Amino acid sequence: MTYERDNIRKLQAYAPGEQPRTTQVVKLNTNENPYPVAPAVMAAIAAVQAESLRKYPPPAASAFRQAAAKAHGLSPDQVMPTNAGDELLRMVISVFCRPVQTSPPIPCAAGVDGGLAVESPTYSLYSVLASIHDTPMIHIPLNQDWSVPDDFAAKVINAGARVAIIVNPHAPSGRLEPLEKLRAIAKALQGHSVLLIDEAYVDFASNDALPLLAPDSGLDNVILLRTLSKGYSLAGLRFGYALGHANLIAAMDKARDSYNTDYLSQVAATAAIEHREVARESWSKVIKQRRWLGHALEELGYRVLPSQTNFLLVTPPGELVSGTTQPTAKAIYESLKQQGIFVRYFDQERLKDKLRITIGTPQQNQTLVEALKAM
Amino acid sequence: MTYERDNIRKLQAYAPGEQPRTTQVVKLNTNENPYPVAPAVMAAIAAVQAESLRKYPPPAASAFRQAAAKAHGLSPDQVMPTNAGDELLRMVISVFCRPVQTSPPIPCAAGVDGGLAVESPTYSLYSVLASIHDTPMIHIPLNQDWSVPDDFAAKVINAGARVAIIVNPHAPSGRLEPLEKLRAIAKALQGHSVLLIDEAYVDFASNDALPLLAPDSGLDNVILLRTLSKGYSLAGLRFGYALGHANLIAAMDKARDSYNTDYLSQVAATAAIEHREVARESWSKVIKQRRWLGHALEELGYRVLPSQTNFLLVTPPGELVSGTTQPTAKAIYESLKQQGIFVRYFDQERLKDKLRITIGTPQQNQTLVEALKAM
Repeated sequence: MTYERDNIRKLQAYAPGEQPRTTQVVKLNTNENPYPVAPAVMAAIAAVQAESLRKYPPPAASAFRQAAAKAHGLSPDQVMPTNAGDELLRMVISVFCRPVQTSPPIPCAAGVDGGLAVESPTYSLYSVLASIHDTPMIHIPLNQDWSVPDDFAAKVINAGARVAIIVNPHAPSGRLEPLEKLRAIAKALQGHSVLLIDEAYVDFASNDALPLLAPDSGLDNVILLRTLSKGYSLAGLRFGYALGHANLIAAMDKARDSYNTDYLSQVAATAAIEHREVARESWSKVIKQRRWLGHALEELGYRVLPSQTNFLLVTPPGELVSGTTQPTAKAIYESLKQQGIFVRYFDQERLKDKLRITIGTPQQNQTLVEALKAM
Repeated sequence: MTYERDNIRKLQAYAPGEQPRTTQVVKLNTNENPYPVAPAVMAAIAAVQAESLRKYPPPAASAFRQAAAKAHGLSPDQVMPTNAGDELLRMVISVFCRPVQTSPPIPCAAGVDGGLAVESPTYSLYSVLASIHDTPMIHIPLNQDWSVPDDFAAKVINAGARVAIIVNPHAPSGRLEPLEKLRAIAKALQGHSVLLIDEAYVDFASNDALPLLAPDSGLDNVILLRTLSKGYSLAGLRFGYALGHANLIAAMDKARDSYNTDYLSQVAATAAIEHREVARESWSKVIKQRRWLGHALEELGYRVLPSQTNFLLVTPPGELVSGTTQPTAKAIYESLKQQGIFVRYFDQERLKDKLRITIGTPQQNQTLVEALKAM
């Protein structure tokens, strides 16, 4: 006898990148920041007293909301902290998308009344979360240059999707859409759908979509996803937050678990935002190394996509010409793994011939390049 | 324009007990443990390195699963850690109950095909979570002595509910149902519904429902909810866990957020379970004080329900006789609050004439009794 709902029974769970616990590896597969968190964050954690953990935490994490609002020039009612970006994604889908009793999800291009629209390819967790909520979804294929197609908003509206997600900068390509294009999409969707811009990697980009939240934007349907996992070197803390129109934040706030973030992570996250300048230094270093690694790989014959993130999506030389004996992307991935160097390989359309490589420290990047040279 | 689903728009969010952040109050309103967490837990937190937070945490929190399995004599695949009990409640409802497009929820005694069955009165968060998931629910009234009615399982099955929740020991009454009664209910529900026994307060009780998870129980439909919030003095940490049949745990594991618990809380929770003897001492002290406070209140004319938890549900003398000038429960609640003593008052059926008082330290309990004497 099984008791779970059909959609859960049929669910293929999300598969996170490998997390070897040994420190003997070069870990360039899950887009962690290679530089450590600000010392002030560790000091804030160490200063927490047993008495503070004995009691329930501030339910709304108000101190963090205030710090984040100040950092981004918003008001605190435009901020909602979550257990990393993942909880926010789950909440956006469950608050705005309608579960339906059709299973499997209606395929691309069919109507998805009340459902979710995403780019293709995109973060694979979205479809897992849609399946858990049992809401239909459409995948809108990106252009060949990884840009969002001009009819994106029209497709979202025609399908009846209540939420559209654009990852910007995009993973796994590294592409950044210009602000004005996002503004036009949000405007077109207004009155129909919420536009969630997943800015998990925005700290490494030249600009963000914050202007879409300004009162004079006239937009009421935009949510930005932020996380401390990458930019703030705190993947282990599971802390993220929404920035958005106050009405959207209020709707999600009603539906979140009463005390969704714990006291230790509230304290650490607040300190991280208040000491942004330390994180900012790490972003500069990563951006510099992104340039170095890109050049080094191009010299080895790799095709390297321009990236506004802390990773590169690259095509090995063996995938660029036919009839070669040079190793495939998958073979390189496996060979690197044998040597204790972890990069990410996606066995899916448009990505089978590519590797996604997190920007590491200069030494890690050097080690990678040497290993690739020797192949 | 609003974008959220109708059920969210209509939702009355859960109202947690007041959390004054000053230490100048006697806080007996949210059932925190008055004694501090084991020093080993604080030491484990202080020992966490920036390098561990930089990386993603172990996604399944395996170290905690192993420690909890060992502590409870189960296997690790019978354990799933969550962000406090609240996340587990949300997951049980979303994994096993079917969302329906009927709103408001179908009233008591009607069919709730695929929905949730709970006791009445019970923890008010359950109905909030059911509303968020948009699943119907029935409330099955408890007997006058707060025991579960004999036809509980029959009512659950007749209604078609997929999950039934029994809080044991019960909040806010403090009642403990005997194991054999729970076993009979689970057996009757087998093949129909999951029985979730919410054991948030079980550390203060004379026995738990762990035998229902033993292989020789023959039961495949039981989940126990545990939390570190009360028994382990870690309400601020937001850490709980499910114990259950491996199939039920596996179904929920697929649907949880990929890295649902963070590294700091994993480390702290594992240390707390491994140093259970420190928590156990606090349970003994609370139980002793429960006896003392119960007697003291009875001497003041209060009716005190027998309790197997860390709180007492009491009826003030003014509510026990008619035509008296003695203060009502609500008046006492408000007067105490004025004096900086927080207890819990529920403005709902069967509870309007009562107060729920958390067991504090000897000094806090003494302060409360003096204040009540002076009224």
